[in-house]
Formats: sequence, C-alpha cells, structure tokens
Amino acid sequence: MSLEKVCIIGSGNWGSAIAKIVGTNTQQHPTLFETTVRQWVFEEKVNGENLTDIINREHENVKYLQGIKLPESIVAVPSVVDACKDATLVVFVVPHQFVRGVCEQMKGHLAPNARAISLIKGLEITSSGIRLFSEEIERILNIPCAALSGANIADEVAKEKFCESTIGCANVQDGQLWHHLFDTAYFRINVIQDHVGVQLCGALKNVVAVGAGFTDGLGYGSNTKAAIIRRGLMEMRKFGQMFFGDMVQTETFFESCGAADLITTCSGGRNRKVAEAFVTTGKPIDVLEKELLNGQKLQGTLSAAEVHEFLSARKMTAEFPLFNTVYRIVYENAPVESIVRDI
Amino acid sequence: MSLEKVCIIGSGNWGSAIAKIVGTNTQQHPTLFETTVRQWVFEEKVNGENLTDIINREHENVKYLQGIKLPESIVAVPSVVDACKDATLVVFVVPHQFVRGVCEQMKGHLAPNARAISLIKGLEITSSGIRLFSEEIERILNIPCAALSGANIADEVAKEKFCESTIGCANVQDGQLWHHLFDTAYFRINVIQDHVGVQLCGALKNVVAVGAGFTDGLGYGSNTKAAIIRRGLMEMRKFGQMFFGDMVQTETFFESCGAADLITTCSGGRNRKVAEAFVTTGKPIDVLEKELLNGQKLQGTLSAAEVHEFLSARKMTAEFPLFNTVYRIVYENAPVESIVRDI
Repeated sequence: MSLEKVCIIGSGNWGSAIAKIVGTNTQQHPTLFETTVRQWVFEEKVNGENLTDIINREHENVKYLQGIKLPESIVAVPSVVDACKDATLVVFVVPHQFVRGVCEQMKGHLAPNARAISLIKGLEITSSGIRLFSEEIERILNIPCAALSGANIADEVAKEKFCESTIGCANVQDGQLWHHLFDTAYFRINVIQDHVGVQLCGALKNVVAVGAGFTDGLGYGSNTKAAIIRRGLMEMRKFGQMFFGDMVQTETFFESCGAADLITTCSGGRNRKVAEAFVTTGKPIDVLEKELLNGQKLQGTLSAAEVHEFLSARKMTAEFPLFNTVYRIVYENAPVESIVRDI
Repeated sequence: MSLEKVCIIGSGNWGSAIAKIVGTNTQQHPTLFETTVRQWVFEEKVNGENLTDIINREHENVKYLQGIKLPESIVAVPSVVDACKDATLVVFVVPHQFVRGVCEQMKGHLAPNARAISLIKGLEITSSGIRLFSEEIERILNIPCAALSGANIADEVAKEKFCESTIGCANVQDGQLWHHLFDTAYFRINVIQDHVGVQLCGALKNVVAVGAGFTDGLGYGSNTKAAIIRRGLMEMRKFGQMFFGDMVQTETFFESCGAADLITTCSGGRNRKVAEAFVTTGKPIDVLEKELLNGQKLQGTLSAAEVHEFLSARKMTAEFPLFNTVYRIVYENAPVESIVRDI
C-alpha cells in the first residue's frame, strides 16, 4: 500500500493549529502517511521577510499562531500548485471566499485517488438553495470531500487544552484515515457519516448565539439561556432534516459539532457578545460591528438574514420561530423580549 | 365530566413557585379543574404565628418564597390527610426523604381515580438497584405517577423568567391534563412519555456538573467544559438505556430535563462551584460542604458514589469513564487532570 501524501490548504490561526496536529500525526503513523506535509501559505512579508521562509526556519507561524512550535514535518509552500502536487489527502482550511479560486488553481494537480476534508466555516444560503463548501470542492475537483467541525478554538487547541471535534465522512474507510490524521489525546475526534449535518451546525449555531446574547442583554438567567440553546438545537435539526432529509442524522446534534459547539458559542464568542450589547446599548448591529469587531461583519446576523431569505422563499419562516424571531429583532425592530415571547 | 381536584404536597421554595403556577392555571381552566387547590404545608411558627395562617391571609409563603404573591385559589392546609382528601391530581414536591412517610399517611384518602406527578429531585441508587420516586409513589398509593423536571430555578420561575420544563407521563391523556395544569407563557411544558428518563436526568446531571467544575478549577476553557457536558449527556443516556432499555428514549436528552438542565447545572450551581473549589483550594469535599454549603451534603458527589457502587456491583464502571473518573478524583485521590485524560 502506498503512503498517503497530505497537504494543507490554508495557514491562518486555525490552519496553523491544525498543522501542528497533522504534522505530528503523520510522524506517529509512518505506515499510513508520508511524514512531510506541505502547507500552502499565502505569501506575505513579515518584517521584510517571506512568511514561508520564517515558518520553514523557525517552525512557527509568527503572524497567525505566535508562540506555538510546528512540527518539522510541516513545510510551508507559497504556491498552491506546488503544495497540492500529487497529494492524496487535502485539508481545506481557508476563509470561505477563497475556496473556489483555490480549487480552480488546484485542478489537475492532485493524485487521481485524492480525497479532501473541509474545515471551512459557514455555508452559502440564498433564496435558491443551500450550498455546502464540501460540495463545492467535490464539484470543482471531482473528489470526495468530508467535513470537520467541533467545539474548537484555535488558540486553545494549539495549547493542547482538551476538546473534541467531529468528522463527517460518507465513506467509512476514509473516515478512519481522517481519524488517524486528526485525533490526538487532547483533540478527540468522533467520525460520523453525516457530513451535511456537521457543516449545517457550524453555520446555524451563530444564529442561536445571537438569540442567547439577547437573553443575556435582558438580564435573564441561565435557565432562559439553556432554553434558547435547547430550542436552537432543535431548530437546527429540523432545518437539516427538512431540507436534507435522512442525510442529516439526529445523532449529529449530540456530537461535538452539534450540542457542544452550540454550548460554547452561546457561552462566549462574538455573536453572543454583540447581541448582548445590542440590547444593553440600543445601538444598531453595524455600529457595534465597528466598535467591537473592528468593522468585521457579525456571522450570526448575516446567517439569520440568509436563513430568513431561504425560508421566506418557501413560506416556512413560521416553522422556525427562534430563527425567525432573531431575524425580526435584528432587521425589523421587533421588541427584544420577543426572543422568549414568540418562540 | 367532573372537575379534577388538585392538591400539592409540599411547600418549600420549589413547591411555592409551583403553587403560584398551579393556582393560576386552575383559574384559567375552570372546565377542567376545581379552582381551589389545597397545599399541604408543614406547619411551623413564623414570628409566633402559624405559617399556614400567614399564607392563607397574606397569600404569600413568607418563609420559603418571600415577596411572591400566591393566587387566592391556593389554600394552605397543615394536615396532609385534609390536604389530599378526595384529590384526583396530586403534585408531590417534598424533599425525597419525606416521600414514603407522607404517602403512608395519604393511603385511602385520595379519590379512586387519582393520579400523581413527582417533582422530587433525585433517585435512590444502591448496589442492588435503582428506585425512582415515581415508582415509590405508585407502589404505596397504587396510582399512576408522572414526573416533571427541567432547567428550572424556583426563584426565577417565581419571577416569571422564561424557562422550559419536561413532563414524563406514560399515559398520553393524563399528560395533556398535566400540561394544562403546569404550562404558562413563561413556564413552557413539553410532555413526553419517558418518565424514567426525566427522573434519571435530574439525578445524574449533578455528577456531570462536578466534572465540569473540575475543568473550571483547572482553568480549562469553555470548549473543554462543552466536551465534558456532551460526554456527560451521552453517559446519562447510556446509563438509562442500559438499565431501563427502550423505556428511556433518545429524544428525552434533547428535552429541557436533559440537555438544557445539564447546561444550566454545569454553568452555575453548587455542584460545579464546590468542585471548582476542590481543585483551587485543595480542600476535601466535606470541608468545602461546611464552608460553602453550611454543612449540607453535595448532591453530585453523593450521586457519584451511589452510581459507582451500582456499577461496581455489575463490573461496569469502565463503561462509564466520566462518572468513574469523577468518583476516582473525589474518593480515590486520582489526579484532577484525569477528568480529561481518562474519559
């Protein structure tokens, strides 16, 4: 059996934390993987020097994951084509807006039996439909694509704080391989087959976190918030099963990508925080984005609008009262108290 | 159809909050219930006056739920026999150690078609088996008994902060009746059939909360805690399904009594707090019980010992690594770090 040749596409905060794990695990399993892992790093200058050169000399991504040593098996490569050449396992961990461009560049350079896994956050939801990034990768590169998502914060993972993550992979044998590539004592992987549910959870959780933040802003207690989290989890499941049918499994919502990630997103996190400030300050979301997020867009309110557009086109907003109420509070000046009154 | 005659057995903090709801709902549904609800109040003197007299004059339980008005439909009765005479619906909300004695006194006084519901927290777990309080009530009084449990704190419910609760009732028609008796705009009831799961969750959650408190004490992040909560929920389900089979339903763990109550118990609550102090101060649990709980016993560590005894007798501790690790840390000086290492 020939060894699997791994490449990582992306090198931000999460990509670097994942590189640490992947580069360690290829060393741990020399009968499965080639030790060397090529990582595509978007080239930029840091103090006048190429970031790839710094990574390859210092074994540290000084820009996006300072203070964490990467294994020497990780080799930073500035060209995406060179990085993915003849790779059999491709780990996608780029911001979602880059997926298509990067895939187009990779076309024809992977090994014939290549398989991919997407660590990309979010979905594209429009009135016409839902597009998963794993499907986009499959479509452009014509290879199967799994997904990984869980209650993970890059910095905590990099510091080896214990957490779990979920891999959704339709092919059981490939699932085992991804397990070997990602599982460590502090980063525990469960493999399930439902790659759709894994990705849906990662996007819809942010809408729920906005609702949870509203109850924090209103000064309600932890039982109210637990009720919002629970109902949110149930709407996430209903959404998945209504629009993807049996592909989306009930068990997925008990996984790290489901209940656990939702809990942690509703406890801390920017979506919760900005929503809380929305109530306590009375300022609109775009003002708070400038003040609290340096102008970055909040994911949860964006997703709430996309989900609303999708559901409206199908006359189904009433079936998802929590998603709908979050939308109405943010975009239609509904009173914040409707977060408990109208769900 | 004759009207249902409701009595409430118990008048502590939770019993008083529930009396407010029940006494309001009997007025809301005059075609289902007699308006008057008799509540058994353990008689005691408050400033030289009988507590029952104060409640019936002031419509307030000044000792256990100060500042909250009870509906005038609630009538405090010092004799348990008088309180339950000819009742058709009996709400049990007494501390568990009083259940048997109270039931013995009630024998022969209820209406022939009476049904009960237990709001009693906890279970009896010994090496020989598990005893649910609903079963004890059924056995002694020979009437069917449902159960109610959820992410509820008495004071928050009394202040009408939004939360949810779960009723487990094997009989669907009775379940509807209990729904009418308890459901309000701020206290939302879901009725399910699995009364066993409802009660198991209420007891086992405290063991998980001790584990969650350990990770707080160790300074781990919210992802680690989310992982403990998730694994705890899965062990609670496994425990239920292993020892009660199909009676315990997977859906129960998505209900308020399951995921939501576990989340809130692991966020705040005394079990989490004492476990955190166990790590940060290095003091033994019994010392912390004196210092932090006025000498009261911590439920989570007691339950951990009971569960351990039960599982040990069946040589099954290894099947429940989280429950087992909590036990070993508290009672066998296992290092606290095993909470993430050994699960």
